Amino acid sequence: MIKNYLMTPGPTPVPPEVLLSMAKPIIHHRTPQFQKILQEVEENLKYLFQTANNVLIFASSGTGAMEGAVCNLLSPGDKAITVQGGKFGERWTEICKAYGVEAIAIDVEWGKAVDPKVIEKKLSTGAIKAVFTTLCETSTGVATDIKAIAEVVKKTEAVLVVDAISALGAVECKTDEWGIDVVVSGSQKGLMIPPGLAFAAVSPKAWKVIEQNKSPKYYFDFKKSKKSIEKTDTPFTPAISLIIGLNAALKILRQEGLDSVVARHKQMAKAIREAAKALGLELLSPTAASDAVTAIKVAQGIDGGKLVKTMRDEYGVGIAGGQADFKGKIFRIASMGYMNQFDVIIAISCLEIVLSRMGYKFELGAGVKATQKVFLD
Amino acid sequence: MIKNYLMTPGPTPVPPEVLLSMAKPIIHHRTPQFQKILQEVEENLKYLFQTANNVLIFASSGTGAMEGAVCNLLSPGDKAITVQGGKFGERWTEICKAYGVEAIAIDVEWGKAVDPKVIEKKLSTGAIKAVFTTLCETSTGVATDIKAIAEVVKKTEAVLVVDAISALGAVECKTDEWGIDVVVSGSQKGLMIPPGLAFAAVSPKAWKVIEQNKSPKYYFDFKKSKKSIEKTDTPFTPAISLIIGLNAALKILRQEGLDSVVARHKQMAKAIREAAKALGLELLSPTAASDAVTAIKVAQGIDGGKLVKTMRDEYGVGIAGGQADFKGKIFRIASMGYMNQFDVIIAISCLEIVLSRMGYKFELGAGVKATQKVFLD
Repeated sequence: MIKNYLMTPGPTPVPPEVLLSMAKPIIHHRTPQFQKILQEVEENLKYLFQTANNVLIFASSGTGAMEGAVCNLLSPGDKAITVQGGKFGERWTEICKAYGVEAIAIDVEWGKAVDPKVIEKKLSTGAIKAVFTTLCETSTGVATDIKAIAEVVKKTEAVLVVDAISALGAVECKTDEWGIDVVVSGSQKGLMIPPGLAFAAVSPKAWKVIEQNKSPKYYFDFKKSKKSIEKTDTPFTPAISLIIGLNAALKILRQEGLDSVVARHKQMAKAIREAAKALGLELLSPTAASDAVTAIKVAQGIDGGKLVKTMRDEYGVGIAGGQADFKGKIFRIASMGYMNQFDVIIAISCLEIVLSRMGYKFELGAGVKATQKVFLD
Repeated sequence: MIKNYLMTPGPTPVPPEVLLSMAKPIIHHRTPQFQKILQEVEENLKYLFQTANNVLIFASSGTGAMEGAVCNLLSPGDKAITVQGGKFGERWTEICKAYGVEAIAIDVEWGKAVDPKVIEKKLSTGAIKAVFTTLCETSTGVATDIKAIAEVVKKTEAVLVVDAISALGAVECKTDEWGIDVVVSGSQKGLMIPPGLAFAAVSPKAWKVIEQNKSPKYYFDFKKSKKSIEKTDTPFTPAISLIIGLNAALKILRQEGLDSVVARHKQMAKAIREAAKALGLELLSPTAASDAVTAIKVAQGIDGGKLVKTMRDEYGVGIAGGQADFKGKIFRIASMGYMNQFDVIIAISCLEIVLSRMGYKFELGAGVKATQKVFLD
């Protein structure tokens, strides 16, 4: 009997009560009934994003809100800094290029975090309209020091945009306190619901920039979206069932409390890192590891693709392989969303079983023991 | 005890087996398991769209795919004809304007259908790159004669784009046979699933135009989407649960068979029209009524807003009111998707009860009897 466990960095598991809330007969979106749900969602999104500003909601993948950030903030010919230390940082550059924005890319070695001083230096040349960063780079498991970057950017005219698709609701992201101008996120990671919703929290500084914007846009028009959400409405038919699921999921998060949520993720990620070390495996990013997903290097002589495939197909434990140049060279275990200590223990115990079968030499049980130690703390 | 019946033109009811398919634990999208589902979905979408070409799938409202059609086919400064005889026709004009496209709008009186000869005449001036139309204008319940328009457009260099968000899977739309270049649709109407997915079927003639396109785009980039779907993949995280629901819904549609589906909708819409007449009510569009949604004029002295509200809040029967200038002046009953004769009978019997309470004079039961006659045929 194979039971399925999802430890991938998006989609992440959806709580049964959330799944069931979405399985109820559909309701119309222009009703007091749905409006009440949307109001609760908006309030709890503000709590989660730690912002007093409106959180815009789009029916799309997270990338839709990323595109929205670019085409609402930047006009053709504008200059922007993009931090690319992985697949999702590169996406900022791609979107800027699609809109005729001059992307000044800061290339960061995969597995390393950007040095805020490098951003500061690039900003000092002037004329930079925006800085695009990533809270947690899913492809490498690297956490960016957004707080430090915000300190740098807030002194300038530029706006700071953070892709928090991966990790919002898992790690700390103090939108207003740190001074982030646009936080973009998605539904299928820390928010514990299926993919199909994207979000954008927008600061007053960013709204001023948006007012002057000249890029073409329609579906992802932030102004249109703001005008609607202020009336607890959406400009287009919303993804009703996903918003109903989101309402249920946000209530679970709020009941646990953001501090506890963040602490839980910290502990899970630490357990995964300690297990890796106990198994003699190397972390891709020992110094800047995110608490949302951990990238671990595949040991010499082990087939990384086969490792991931065996765990999934023979044991039902879904983890992720590497992307691009890291294909076959790393594997990634998420600690994000609806997961707790036993999910981590399952993932590590399965990893041990499969590594053992593949001939990797280590002390069986050492990884699980290391996680238990962390969870006992 | 109030039971809820949804007779609105989107969202429409979702079959319980579809709801339950979406309530299963979520799976990852980069797995053979999901790829099999996506392959089945793609095959059945081709059946439903009646096309041999790829059907692109987007995680968005239908409007997203409309924007995609504009920004993939037209470059700034291009000229396009938009047919606007309602709220959704007007949307084509709005999107064209957002992208710097010169929209030559054909204004059609709300409740009337466009005369294909008018399009022919506008096309003869040359330099028109695209014609944007609506299969069923949800705001008025008007059906457009797409087949006749396609005859006209196919003789020119222009491409024909049809917004079939409302009515695909309910009325005839022979994409390849009629020669439509782009058919855009959404998930929450004839396709019987919740909102959040959009589609675009694209002809070889349209792909040639897309190749030359210069408008900025990223998330709705048709070429990127095509490249992915050819490998049974998606460029961005798909709305996994909605695609799983779509797979279940398309199987239901395919089992019933498209001819039977169309015949069922024809009969339901006829029953609604006959009921309206039997109750002494006037159709907004006696000559060009769609089989997907019927707009009925509110009788003199009756408060249209109150009628719709009373049916919904006191009886659980959701129908739609009028939009824009028709607010309070019409009400709309859908016959679209997961509905049959008894849904129509419920809607009409409830309409009679509420009209009676509101003091409207008619023979109680006459509407229901008229529907029964149609269903007996």
